[in-house]
Amino acid sequence: MALLKSLTLKPLVKPYTSPILMNHFFNRKSTVRSFSAAMSPPSTAVVYHQEGPPDSVTKMVEVPAVEVKENEICVKMLAAPINPSDINRIQGVYPVRPQVPAVGGYEGVGEVHSLGSAVKGFSPGDLVIPCPPSFGTWQTYVVKEQSVWHKVSKGTPVEYAATVFVNPLTALRMLEDFVDLNPGDSIVQNGATSIVGQCIIQLARIRGIRSINIIRDRAGSDEAKEKLKKLGADEVFTESQLEVKNVKSLLANIPEPDLGFNCVGGNAATLVMKFLRQRGTMVTYGGMSKKPVTVSTSAFIFKDLSLRGFWLQNLLSSAKGEECKSMIDYLLGLAREGKLTYEMELTPFKDFQTALDKSLGKLGSQPKQIIKF
Amino acid sequence: MALLKSLTLKPLVKPYTSPILMNHFFNRKSTVRSFSAAMSPPSTAVVYHQEGPPDSVTKMVEVPAVEVKENEICVKMLAAPINPSDINRIQGVYPVRPQVPAVGGYEGVGEVHSLGSAVKGFSPGDLVIPCPPSFGTWQTYVVKEQSVWHKVSKGTPVEYAATVFVNPLTALRMLEDFVDLNPGDSIVQNGATSIVGQCIIQLARIRGIRSINIIRDRAGSDEAKEKLKKLGADEVFTESQLEVKNVKSLLANIPEPDLGFNCVGGNAATLVMKFLRQRGTMVTYGGMSKKPVTVSTSAFIFKDLSLRGFWLQNLLSSAKGEECKSMIDYLLGLAREGKLTYEMELTPFKDFQTALDKSLGKLGSQPKQIIKF
Repeated sequence: MALLKSLTLKPLVKPYTSPILMNHFFNRKSTVRSFSAAMSPPSTAVVYHQEGPPDSVTKMVEVPAVEVKENEICVKMLAAPINPSDINRIQGVYPVRPQVPAVGGYEGVGEVHSLGSAVKGFSPGDLVIPCPPSFGTWQTYVVKEQSVWHKVSKGTPVEYAATVFVNPLTALRMLEDFVDLNPGDSIVQNGATSIVGQCIIQLARIRGIRSINIIRDRAGSDEAKEKLKKLGADEVFTESQLEVKNVKSLLANIPEPDLGFNCVGGNAATLVMKFLRQRGTMVTYGGMSKKPVTVSTSAFIFKDLSLRGFWLQNLLSSAKGEECKSMIDYLLGLAREGKLTYEMELTPFKDFQTALDKSLGKLGSQPKQIIKF
Repeated sequence: MALLKSLTLKPLVKPYTSPILMNHFFNRKSTVRSFSAAMSPPSTAVVYHQEGPPDSVTKMVEVPAVEVKENEICVKMLAAPINPSDINRIQGVYPVRPQVPAVGGYEGVGEVHSLGSAVKGFSPGDLVIPCPPSFGTWQTYVVKEQSVWHKVSKGTPVEYAATVFVNPLTALRMLEDFVDLNPGDSIVQNGATSIVGQCIIQLARIRGIRSINIIRDRAGSDEAKEKLKKLGADEVFTESQLEVKNVKSLLANIPEPDLGFNCVGGNAATLVMKFLRQRGTMVTYGGMSKKPVTVSTSAFIFKDLSLRGFWLQNLLSSAKGEECKSMIDYLLGLAREGKLTYEMELTPFKDFQTALDKSLGKLGSQPKQIIKF
């Protein structure tokens, strides 16, 4: 079996035109032309041959060396997260996903191992991330065109470099792309304990924007509140605390928010809308409760709310893709300075199945799992 | 009892700053200073002293003459509609409404009866409408500042001049204000038999925009379909016809719409969203089913829909208020040419209670009621 490195996207939403991603796995095999070319080391990869339950369809396999073509870079992976969207891709329920057989994973970080003959501006040992992310990061060696790779500062903690795109960039873009916020303004969000939620609190704080945060009622919610306040949250409420006639009466010195974020749906989304000011905007980027968003007619007509959605994938195919690189650099700078933090657990690659079980929720609430190669 | 002509708005949403509307009824009484000033004729008005069921709280009363001040115009009303929002104001359930005691009505048309000494640009006999509309049109003589009145062409059918603001202007602004549409594009709407719905069909047609229309399942729906097609509707479906896996498979040569209008809520709103293309916009301007709009998380994230609301009242307090006058002239031009039509029933003022009962739905489905003075 050849190294799984470039896989076709099923264009379920729209055709994806990145040439490197359009190389089909099977076509790829036939392009291995000569044993005299530069070759990657053999790789160990988490592969699935059909979509389904991730804990039964994924296997760790050894894949042989492949050619590193003149414009390609072979990267020795250092770390890669297991994100919910990675799981949804393997389950076959995510709109944009690779054709099987496929290697799991979408973001990650590695160091340059070897370079194709025409590659410029990279050296062995450079810390690089696929930017925008690219399928197949759950393996020890990844070979992709140099345009896929973005160099990051060597002092960057690998777990932040590995996870900067999917969560922190979502937080940053959502704060930038919908409403012009100024210091002293506020935002409201539910699912505030999620990594995106924690990033929103910290990124807002840096800009002088106050955050109103809604979390679930559950054992440990007092502890969760304290954690979020330490990150810079101005107000944290559980959903049950908001069972009052006028939620805005709970805001002491915080102005009504003009922007809200919803990653839960159901009642938690309704609460975000209740906090919003006249003509405010709510951005939905997740649906953790699996409940829809329900909106009264008067919220549209008399309160003039705008409801929008955010999906990083749409950004990647837009002109903003390039702009993301400087945002990534900004976010990783904050991570290096300790100004952007979130809890993660690093698990050795050999224990992948344990990390997967934790990510699937089979072992209760667990921190974000980062595979360390 | 003095002539009820200028009434304060309760600022339930925000303060309204039009000076003429801020004159309080009772203050008004004290400004009648001299019997030598120009006076209006006595007026017959539909008045309510408290909010409640319109058929029990409204009474037709005679109100004495008042002074016509130097900047005011006395208008002899010719026609005024009973709109659902007029009813909601009397019921006390509309966010912006006059303080009681109040004269009912909000839009209408009349002819200039007499002018204050400083009024320029108007002559007795001119056809005028309050533009933007102004409380208290259900009476035979209305006295307001000249800035309230907008002159319209004398050939205009009074029933169209009386109704042009609330419904046709809503249709026109909704087609203009949310998405840039080009000839060949399409829109989708529910509640298509409403007057706004009929206006949307005709105004879209004039611009070469195709319309997909959704109506309720009920006796006479085949006849309703035919009527809408005669107005220029490209496709008309009942809700039950859209119980198919992919509603878009029903569109023959019409492109997927980028813009949808919802005045119903519930399933009818979901159907509008199903027709919309990726990144489409749905504008809610009514909730006839009294059911909320329910939206899946994936409609926001993966389909990237935007959900907005439209309320004419917001427009009036924005900079677009002035721009509305040229739109009104455009719409009345179409009405004069027979290119904008909708069914109305003219009822003599003396039979106001019958017109009100019809508007309240007490006599089954009835055309829009226009009071003819």
